[in-house]
Amino acid sequence: MTQTTAPVSDRTRVRREADRGRYDKETLHAIIDAAYVCHIAFNDDKGTHCIPTACWREDDHLYIHGSNGSRMLKVAAAGLQVCVTITHIDGLVLARSAFNHSMNYRSAVIYGVFERIPDERKAGRLDAFMEKLAPGRSREARPGDATELAATTVLRVSLAEAACKIRTGGPHDSEEDMSRDVWAGVLPMTTAGQTPIPDGPMSRMPDYVAKWAAD
Amino acid sequence: MTQTTAPVSDRTRVRREADRGRYDKETLHAIIDAAYVCHIAFNDDKGTHCIPTACWREDDHLYIHGSNGSRMLKVAAAGLQVCVTITHIDGLVLARSAFNHSMNYRSAVIYGVFERIPDERKAGRLDAFMEKLAPGRSREARPGDATELAATTVLRVSLAEAACKIRTGGPHDSEEDMSRDVWAGVLPMTTAGQTPIPDGPMSRMPDYVAKWAAD
Repeated sequence: MTQTTAPVSDRTRVRREADRGRYDKETLHAIIDAAYVCHIAFNDDKGTHCIPTACWREDDHLYIHGSNGSRMLKVAAAGLQVCVTITHIDGLVLARSAFNHSMNYRSAVIYGVFERIPDERKAGRLDAFMEKLAPGRSREARPGDATELAATTVLRVSLAEAACKIRTGGPHDSEEDMSRDVWAGVLPMTTAGQTPIPDGPMSRMPDYVAKWAAD
Repeated sequence: MTQTTAPVSDRTRVRREADRGRYDKETLHAIIDAAYVCHIAFNDDKGTHCIPTACWREDDHLYIHGSNGSRMLKVAAAGLQVCVTITHIDGLVLARSAFNHSMNYRSAVIYGVFERIPDERKAGRLDAFMEKLAPGRSREARPGDATELAATTVLRVSLAEAACKIRTGGPHDSEEDMSRDVWAGVLPMTTAGQTPIPDGPMSRMPDYVAKWAAD
Protein backbone atom coordinates (compact mmCIF):
# COMPACT_ATOMS: atom_id res chain seq x y z
CA MET A 1 0.00 0.00 0.00
CA THR A 2 1.37 3.37 -0.97
CA GLN A 3 1.28 5.84 1.89
CA THR A 4 -1.59 8.11 1.00
CA THR A 5 -4.09 10.39 2.64
CA ALA A 6 -6.50 10.20 -0.28
CA PRO A 7 -8.59 7.35 -1.68
CA VAL A 8 -6.78 5.27 -4.29
CA SER A 9 -9.90 4.34 -6.21
CA ASP A 10 -13.44 5.54 -6.67
CA ARG A 11 -14.88 2.69 -4.65
CA THR A 12 -12.65 3.37 -1.65
CA ARG A 13 -13.65 7.02 -1.37
CA VAL A 14 -15.68 7.44 1.83
CA ARG A 15 -18.81 9.37 0.86
CA ARG A 16 -21.11 9.31 3.91
CA GLU A 17 -19.49 11.27 6.76
CA ALA A 18 -16.45 11.79 4.55
CA ASP A 19 -14.53 13.39 7.44
CA ARG A 20 -14.39 9.94 9.03
CA GLY A 21 -12.41 8.52 6.09
CA ARG A 22 -8.78 7.51 6.66
CA TYR A 23 -6.45 6.37 3.92
CA ASP A 24 -3.09 6.07 5.65
CA LYS A 25 -1.19 2.83 6.10
CA GLU A 26 -0.76 3.16 9.89
CA THR A 27 -4.51 3.37 10.49
CA LEU A 28 -5.23 0.43 8.19
CA HIS A 29 -2.54 -1.75 9.74
CA ALA A 30 -3.71 -0.97 13.28
CA ILE A 31 -7.31 -1.90 12.47
CA ILE A 32 -6.28 -5.20 10.88
CA ASP A 33 -3.80 -6.04 13.64
CA ALA A 34 -6.49 -5.55 16.30
CA ALA A 35 -8.80 -8.05 14.57
CA TYR A 36 -9.21 -11.78 14.95
CA VAL A 37 -11.61 -12.12 12.04
CA CYS A 38 -12.63 -10.37 8.86
CA HIS A 39 -15.76 -10.71 6.74
CA ILE A 40 -15.23 -11.67 3.11
CA ALA A 41 -17.82 -10.83 0.48
CA PHE A 42 -17.74 -12.65 -2.84
CA ASN A 43 -20.06 -13.60 -5.62
CA ASP A 44 -20.60 -17.01 -7.16
CA ASP A 45 -23.29 -18.82 -9.11
CA LYS A 46 -25.42 -19.06 -5.95
CA GLY A 47 -25.36 -15.36 -5.21
CA THR A 48 -23.49 -12.87 -3.06
CA HIS A 49 -21.99 -14.27 0.14
CA CYS A 50 -20.45 -12.82 3.30
CA ILE A 51 -18.34 -15.25 5.31
CA PRO A 52 -16.33 -14.59 8.49
CA THR A 53 -12.85 -16.04 8.76
CA ALA A 54 -9.71 -15.58 10.84
CA CYS A 55 -7.15 -13.17 9.39
CA TRP A 56 -3.74 -11.71 10.02
CA ARG A 57 -1.40 -9.22 8.35
CA GLU A 58 2.16 -9.40 7.17
CA ASP A 59 3.54 -6.20 5.65
CA ASP A 60 1.09 -5.00 3.01
CA HIS A 61 -1.08 -8.11 2.71
CA LEU A 62 -3.97 -9.57 4.65
CA TYR A 63 -3.85 -13.38 4.98
CA ILE A 64 -6.51 -16.02 5.51
CA HIS A 65 -6.29 -19.79 5.69
CA GLY A 66 -8.44 -22.87 5.93
CA SER A 67 -9.18 -26.31 4.62
CA ASN A 68 -8.64 -27.00 0.93
CA GLY A 69 -12.26 -28.15 0.92
CA SER A 70 -13.67 -24.77 1.96
CA ARG A 71 -15.99 -23.36 -0.68
CA MET A 72 -15.09 -19.83 0.30
CA LEU A 73 -11.35 -20.47 -0.07
CA LYS A 74 -11.84 -22.25 -3.38
CA VAL A 75 -13.87 -19.36 -4.75
CA ALA A 76 -11.49 -16.77 -3.30
CA ALA A 77 -8.49 -18.55 -4.78
CA ALA A 78 -10.13 -18.57 -8.20
CA GLY A 79 -9.15 -14.97 -8.75
CA LEU A 80 -12.46 -13.14 -8.54
CA GLN A 81 -12.83 -9.77 -6.86
CA VAL A 82 -13.53 -9.85 -3.14
CA CYS A 83 -14.22 -7.28 -0.48
CA VAL A 84 -12.68 -7.88 2.94
CA THR A 85 -14.06 -5.88 5.85
CA ILE A 86 -13.01 -5.55 9.48
CA THR A 87 -15.06 -3.67 12.06
CA HIS A 88 -14.38 -2.81 15.68
CA ILE A 89 -17.21 -1.27 17.72
CA ASP A 90 -15.82 1.05 20.40
CA GLY A 91 -18.96 2.47 21.94
CA LEU A 92 -22.56 3.60 21.76
CA VAL A 93 -22.91 7.36 21.34
CA LEU A 94 -26.05 8.56 23.12
CA ALA A 95 -27.17 12.00 21.97
CA ARG A 96 -29.93 14.19 23.38
CA SER A 97 -31.94 13.67 20.19
CA ALA A 98 -32.75 10.25 18.77
CA PHE A 99 -31.52 11.34 15.34
CA ASN A 100 -27.99 12.16 16.53
CA HIS A 101 -27.32 8.81 18.17
CA SER A 102 -24.29 7.07 16.71
CA MET A 103 -21.60 4.49 17.37
CA ASN A 104 -17.87 4.85 17.74
CA TYR A 105 -16.09 2.40 15.50
CA ARG A 106 -13.03 1.64 13.41
CA SER A 107 -13.57 -0.16 10.13
CA ALA A 108 -11.44 -1.15 7.16
CA VAL A 109 -12.69 -2.13 3.72
CA ILE A 110 -10.25 -3.79 1.33
CA TYR A 111 -10.93 -4.52 -2.35
CA GLY A 112 -8.78 -7.00 -4.19
CA VAL A 113 -8.14 -10.47 -5.50
CA PHE A 114 -6.69 -13.26 -3.36
CA GLU A 115 -3.55 -15.04 -4.44
CA ARG A 116 -2.51 -18.50 -3.29
CA ILE A 117 0.59 -18.87 -1.11
CA PRO A 118 2.87 -21.55 -2.62
CA ASP A 119 3.33 -24.77 -0.61
CA GLU A 120 6.90 -24.01 0.44
CA ARG A 121 5.85 -20.70 2.03
CA LYS A 122 2.72 -21.87 3.85
CA ALA A 123 4.37 -23.05 7.07
CA GLY A 124 6.09 -19.70 7.55
CA ARG A 125 2.87 -17.78 7.09
CA LEU A 126 0.94 -20.01 9.51
CA ASP A 127 3.74 -19.55 12.06
CA ALA A 128 3.36 -15.78 11.67
CA PHE A 129 -0.37 -16.11 12.38
CA MET A 130 0.33 -18.18 15.50
CA GLU A 131 2.90 -15.63 16.69
CA LYS A 132 0.34 -12.86 16.31
CA LEU A 133 -2.18 -14.75 18.46
CA ALA A 134 0.29 -16.11 20.99
CA PRO A 135 3.91 -14.86 20.85
CA GLY A 136 6.34 -17.77 21.21
CA ARG A 137 3.74 -20.46 20.65
CA SER A 138 4.89 -21.41 17.16
CA ARG A 139 7.95 -22.96 18.90
CA GLU A 140 5.85 -24.76 21.55
CA ALA A 141 2.97 -26.44 19.70
CA ARG A 142 3.65 -29.36 17.38
CA PRO A 143 4.18 -27.88 13.92
CA GLY A 144 2.00 -28.97 11.05
CA ASP A 145 3.23 -32.14 9.34
CA ALA A 146 3.32 -32.63 5.58
CA THR A 147 -0.22 -34.01 5.44
CA GLU A 148 -1.68 -31.19 7.54
CA LEU A 149 0.11 -28.51 5.52
CA ALA A 150 -0.98 -30.11 2.25
CA ALA A 151 -4.62 -29.98 3.43
CA THR A 152 -4.38 -26.25 4.20
CA THR A 153 -4.87 -23.37 1.79
CA VAL A 154 -3.26 -20.02 2.60
CA LEU A 155 -4.34 -16.95 0.62
CA ARG A 156 -3.40 -13.30 0.74
CA VAL A 157 -4.84 -10.09 -0.64
CA SER A 158 -2.96 -6.85 -1.20
CA LEU A 159 -3.85 -3.83 0.93
CA ALA A 160 -3.34 -1.47 -2.01
CA GLU A 161 -7.03 -0.66 -2.49
CA ALA A 162 -8.41 0.02 0.95
CA ALA A 163 -10.16 2.63 3.04
CA CYS A 164 -10.78 3.05 6.74
CA LYS A 165 -13.56 4.86 8.53
CA ILE A 166 -13.35 5.93 12.14
CA ARG A 167 -15.66 7.68 14.54
CA THR A 168 -14.48 8.77 17.99
CA GLY A 169 -15.71 11.13 20.70
CA GLY A 170 -19.02 12.19 22.14
CA PRO A 171 -22.40 13.07 20.66
CA HIS A 172 -22.99 16.04 18.37
CA ASP A 173 -26.33 17.55 19.32
CA SER A 174 -27.76 20.71 17.89
CA GLU A 175 -27.76 23.79 20.12
CA GLU A 176 -31.50 23.69 20.84
CA ASP A 177 -31.26 20.12 22.18
CA MET A 178 -28.46 20.83 24.65
CA SER A 179 -30.72 21.83 27.52
CA ARG A 180 -32.79 18.63 27.43
CA ASP A 181 -32.66 16.69 30.68
CA VAL A 182 -31.48 13.39 29.25
CA TRP A 183 -28.21 11.56 29.83
CA ALA A 184 -25.86 12.03 26.88
CA GLY A 185 -22.40 10.66 26.32
CA VAL A 186 -20.59 7.51 25.30
CA LEU A 187 -21.04 3.94 26.53
CA PRO A 188 -17.61 2.57 25.58
CA MET A 189 -16.99 -1.10 24.89
CA THR A 190 -13.98 -3.24 24.18
CA THR A 191 -13.04 -6.85 23.52
CA ALA A 192 -11.81 -8.19 26.84
CA GLY A 193 -9.96 -11.40 27.64
CA GLN A 194 -11.51 -13.60 30.34
CA THR A 195 -9.90 -16.19 32.62
CA PRO A 196 -8.12 -18.88 30.54
CA ILE A 197 -9.63 -22.39 30.64
CA PRO A 198 -6.86 -25.04 30.58
CA ASP A 199 -7.63 -28.34 28.83
CA GLY A 200 -6.60 -30.41 31.87
CA PRO A 201 -3.67 -29.85 34.28
CA MET A 202 -0.83 -27.80 32.74
CA SER A 203 2.77 -27.85 33.94
CA ARG A 204 3.50 -24.37 32.69
CA MET A 205 1.74 -21.16 31.83
CA PRO A 206 3.21 -19.12 28.99
CA ASP A 207 3.14 -15.32 29.14
CA TYR A 208 0.35 -14.97 26.59
CA VAL A 209 -1.89 -17.11 28.82
CA ALA A 210 -0.89 -15.42 32.10
CA LYS A 211 -1.52 -11.97 30.62
CA TRP A 212 -4.69 -12.85 28.70
CA ALA A 213 -7.37 -11.82 31.19
CA ALA A 214 -5.43 -8.73 32.25
CA ASP A 215 -5.34 -7.24 28.75
CA MET B 1 -38.67 -18.10 9.90
CA THR B 2 -40.11 -21.56 10.21
CA GLN B 3 -38.74 -23.47 13.16
CA THR B 4 -36.38 -25.96 11.63
CA THR B 5 -33.35 -27.99 12.48
CA ALA B 6 -32.35 -28.43 8.86
CA PRO B 7 -31.10 -25.95 6.24
CA VAL B 8 -33.90 -24.31 4.25
CA SER B 9 -31.83 -23.84 1.10
CA ASP B 10 -28.74 -25.24 -0.54
CA ARG B 11 -26.73 -22.12 0.20
CA THR B 12 -27.52 -22.16 3.91
CA ARG B 13 -26.36 -25.74 4.41
CA VAL B 14 -23.19 -25.64 6.54
CA ARG B 15 -20.65 -27.84 4.76
CA ARG B 16 -17.32 -27.35 6.55
CA GLU B 17 -17.58 -28.68 10.11
CA ALA B 18 -21.23 -29.47 9.44
CA ASP B 19 -21.76 -30.46 13.08
CA ARG B 20 -21.38 -26.78 13.95
CA GLY B 21 -24.41 -25.82 11.86
CA ARG B 22 -27.55 -24.62 13.65
CA TYR B 23 -30.84 -23.89 11.92
CA ASP B 24 -33.22 -23.16 14.78
CA LYS B 25 -34.88 -19.83 15.38
CA GLU B 26 -33.75 -19.45 19.01
CA THR B 27 -30.09 -19.69 18.08
CA LEU B 28 -30.47 -17.25 15.21
CA HIS B 29 -32.38 -14.72 17.30
CA ALA B 30 -29.86 -14.90 20.14
CA ILE B 31 -26.92 -14.26 17.79
CA ILE B 32 -28.64 -11.27 16.19
CA ASP B 33 -29.82 -9.84 19.53
CA ALA B 34 -26.28 -9.96 20.92
CA ALA B 35 -24.94 -7.90 17.99
CA TYR B 36 -24.55 -4.17 17.50
CA VAL B 37 -23.56 -4.45 13.85
CA CYS B 38 -23.84 -6.78 10.90
CA HIS B 39 -21.85 -6.94 7.68
CA ILE B 40 -23.83 -6.61 4.46
CA ALA B 41 -22.50 -8.01 1.20
CA PHE B 42 -23.97 -6.81 -2.07
CA ASN B 43 -23.00 -6.46 -5.67
CA ASP B 44 -23.25 -3.41 -7.89
CA ASP B 45 -21.64 -2.09 -11.04
CA LYS B 46 -18.43 -1.36 -9.11
CA GLY B 47 -18.06 -4.87 -7.76
CA THR B 48 -18.80 -6.84 -4.62
CA HIS B 49 -18.94 -4.84 -1.39
CA CYS B 50 -19.02 -5.64 2.32
CA ILE B 51 -20.23 -2.82 4.55
CA PRO B 52 -20.76 -2.82 8.32
CA THR B 53 -23.89 -1.23 9.72
CA ALA B 54 -25.92 -1.20 12.92
CA CYS B 55 -28.75 -3.74 13.09
CA TRP B 56 -31.55 -4.94 15.28
CA ARG B 57 -34.24 -7.58 15.18
CA GLU B 58 -38.01 -7.50 15.51
CA ASP B 59 -39.77 -10.86 15.28
CA ASP B 60 -38.53 -12.60 12.14
CA HIS B 61 -36.79 -9.67 10.43
CA LEU B 62 -33.42 -7.99 10.75
CA TYR B 63 -33.55 -4.20 10.43
CA ILE B 64 -30.99 -1.60 9.35
CA HIS B 65 -31.27 2.15 8.93
CA GLY B 66 -29.30 5.13 7.73
CA SER B 67 -29.30 8.26 5.65
CA ASN B 68 -31.30 8.29 2.43
CA GLY B 69 -28.03 9.28 0.78
CA SER B 70 -26.20 6.10 1.74
CA ARG B 71 -25.09 4.17 -1.33
CA MET B 72 -25.40 0.90 0.53
CA LEU B 73 -28.98 1.60 1.59
CA LYS B 74 -29.95 2.73 -1.89
CA VAL B 75 -28.53 -0.43 -3.42
CA ALA B 76 -30.02 -2.62 -0.69
CA ALA B 77 -33.44 -1.01 -1.13
CA ALA B 78 -33.31 -1.67 -4.87
CA GLY B 79 -34.28 -5.28 -4.31
CA LEU B 80 -31.13 -7.16 -5.13
CA GLN B 81 -29.98 -10.18 -3.18
CA VAL B 82 -27.83 -9.45 -0.15
CA CYS B 83 -26.04 -11.53 2.42
CA VAL B 84 -26.08 -10.28 6.00
CA THR B 85 -23.58 -11.78 8.42
CA ILE B 86 -23.05 -11.42 12.16
CA THR B 87 -20.09 -12.89 13.99
CA HIS B 88 -19.20 -13.06 17.68
CA ILE B 89 -15.74 -14.32 18.63
CA ASP B 90 -15.83 -16.08 22.01
CA GLY B 91 -12.29 -17.33 22.37
CA LEU B 92 -9.03 -18.61 20.95
CA VAL B 93 -8.72 -22.39 21.11
CA LEU B 94 -5.10 -23.37 21.66
CA ALA B 95 -4.41 -27.00 20.79
CA ARG B 96 -1.24 -29.03 21.33
CA SER B 97 -0.70 -29.16 17.58
CA ALA B 98 -0.66 -26.09 15.37
CA PHE B 99 -3.12 -27.71 12.98
CA ASN B 100 -5.84 -28.18 15.61
CA HIS B 101 -5.93 -24.56 16.75
CA SER B 102 -9.34 -22.97 16.35
CA MET B 103 -11.62 -20.24 17.58
CA ASN B 104 -14.88 -20.37 19.47
CA TYR B 105 -17.51 -18.30 17.76
CA ARG B 106 -21.19 -17.78 16.97
CA SER B 107 -22.09 -16.62 13.49
CA ALA B 108 -25.27 -16.10 11.51
CA VAL B 109 -25.55 -15.79 7.73
CA ILE B 110 -28.80 -14.48 6.27
CA TYR B 111 -29.69 -14.46 2.56
CA GLY B 112 -32.47 -12.27 1.33
CA VAL B 113 -33.72 -9.08 -0.19
CA PHE B 114 -34.31 -5.91 1.81
CA GLU B 115 -37.68 -4.22 1.79
CA ARG B 116 -38.30 -0.58 2.63
CA ILE B 117 -40.27 0.30 5.76
CA PRO B 118 -43.05 2.75 4.85
CA ASP B 119 -42.78 6.29 6.27
CA GLU B 120 -45.58 5.86 8.78
CA ARG B 121 -43.88 2.85 10.38
CA LYS B 122 -40.32 4.20 10.54
CA ALA B 123 -40.57 6.00 13.90
CA GLY B 124 -41.83 2.86 15.62
CA ARG B 125 -38.99 0.77 14.25
CA LEU B 126 -36.35 3.32 15.25
CA ASP B 127 -37.85 3.41 18.75
CA ALA B 128 -37.52 -0.36 18.91
CA PHE B 129 -33.84 -0.06 17.98
CA MET B 130 -33.29 2.55 20.70
CA GLU B 131 -35.05 0.34 23.24
CA LYS B 132 -32.75 -2.53 22.37
CA LEU B 133 -29.66 -0.38 22.95
CA ALA B 134 -30.96 1.49 26.00
CA PRO B 135 -34.27 0.35 27.55
CA GLY B 136 -36.47 3.35 28.32
CA ARG B 137 -34.42 5.83 26.30
CA SER B 138 -36.92 6.19 23.46
CA ARG B 139 -39.06 8.12 25.97
CA GLU B 140 -36.15 10.30 27.19
CA ALA B 141 -34.34 11.50 24.08
CA ARG B 142 -35.99 14.00 21.75
CA PRO B 143 -37.82 11.95 19.11
CA GLY B 144 -37.01 12.45 15.46
CA ASP B 145 -38.95 15.30 13.86
CA ALA B 146 -40.56 15.11 10.43
CA THR B 147 -37.43 16.31 8.64
CA GLU B 148 -35.16 13.85 10.43
CA LEU B 149 -37.49 10.93 9.82
CA ALA B 150 -37.88 11.89 6.16
CA ALA B 151 -34.07 11.83 5.79
CA THR B 152 -33.84 8.31 7.23
CA THR B 153 -34.27 5.03 5.38
CA VAL B 154 -35.29 1.94 7.35
CA LEU B 155 -34.99 -1.47 5.69
CA ARG B 156 -35.67 -5.01 6.80
CA VAL B 157 -34.78 -8.46 5.56
CA SER B 158 -36.60 -11.68 6.39
CA LEU B 159 -34.81 -14.29 8.48
CA ALA B 160 -36.39 -17.11 6.48
CA GLU B 161 -33.17 -18.13 4.69
CA ALA B 162 -30.49 -18.24 7.35
CA ALA B 163 -27.94 -20.49 8.97
CA CYS B 164 -25.87 -20.28 12.12
CA LYS B 165 -22.55 -21.84 12.92
CA ILE B 166 -21.23 -22.25 16.45
CA ARG B 167 -18.08 -23.64 17.98
CA THR B 168 -17.73 -24.05 21.74
CA GLY B 169 -15.42 -25.93 24.09
CA GLY B 170 -11.78 -26.86 24.26
CA PRO B 171 -9.25 -28.12 21.72
CA HIS B 172 -9.51 -31.47 19.96
CA ASP B 173 -6.03 -32.91 19.73
CA SER B 174 -5.18 -36.34 18.45
CA GLU B 175 -4.15 -38.97 20.98
CA GLU B 176 -0.45 -38.88 20.09
CA ASP B 177 -0.27 -35.13 20.77
CA MET B 178 -1.82 -35.27 24.24
CA SER B 179 1.46 -35.83 26.09
CA ARG B 180 3.18 -32.78 24.61
CA ASP B 181 4.31 -30.29 27.24
CA VAL B 182 2.52 -27.26 25.82
CA TRP B 183 -0.31 -25.24 27.35
CA ALA B 184 -3.64 -26.13 25.73
CA GLY B 185 -7.07 -24.73 26.38
CA VAL B 186 -9.25 -21.74 25.62
CA LEU B 187 -8.48 -18.05 25.93
CA PRO B 188 -12.06 -16.71 26.21
CA MET B 189 -13.02 -13.21 25.19
CA THR B 190 -16.13 -11.10 25.36
CA THR B 191 -17.40 -7.64 24.52
CA ALA B 192 -17.24 -5.68 27.76
CA GLY B 193 -18.72 -2.31 28.65
CA GLN B 194 -16.31 0.27 30.05
CA THR B 195 -16.96 3.28 32.29
CA PRO B 196 -19.53 5.61 30.66
CA ILE B 197 -18.26 9.03 29.54
CA PRO B 198 -20.91 11.72 30.13
CA ASP B 199 -21.03 14.62 27.67
CA GLY B 200 -20.85 17.22 30.43
CA PRO B 201 -22.53 17.22 33.87
CA MET B 202 -25.67 15.04 34.01
CA SER B 203 -28.48 15.42 36.53
CA ARG B 204 -29.55 11.79 36.31
CA MET B 205 -28.13 8.44 35.41
CA PRO B 206 -30.53 5.97 33.82
CA ASP B 207 -30.25 2.27 34.59
CA TYR B 208 -28.71 1.36 31.23
CA VAL B 209 -25.87 3.78 31.95
CA ALA B 210 -25.38 2.75 35.58
CA LYS B 211 -25.25 -0.93 34.62
CA TRP B 212 -23.17 -0.52 31.47
CA ALA B 213 -19.69 -1.19 32.80
CA ALA B 214 -20.89 -3.97 35.11
CA ASP B 215 -22.29 -6.10 32.30
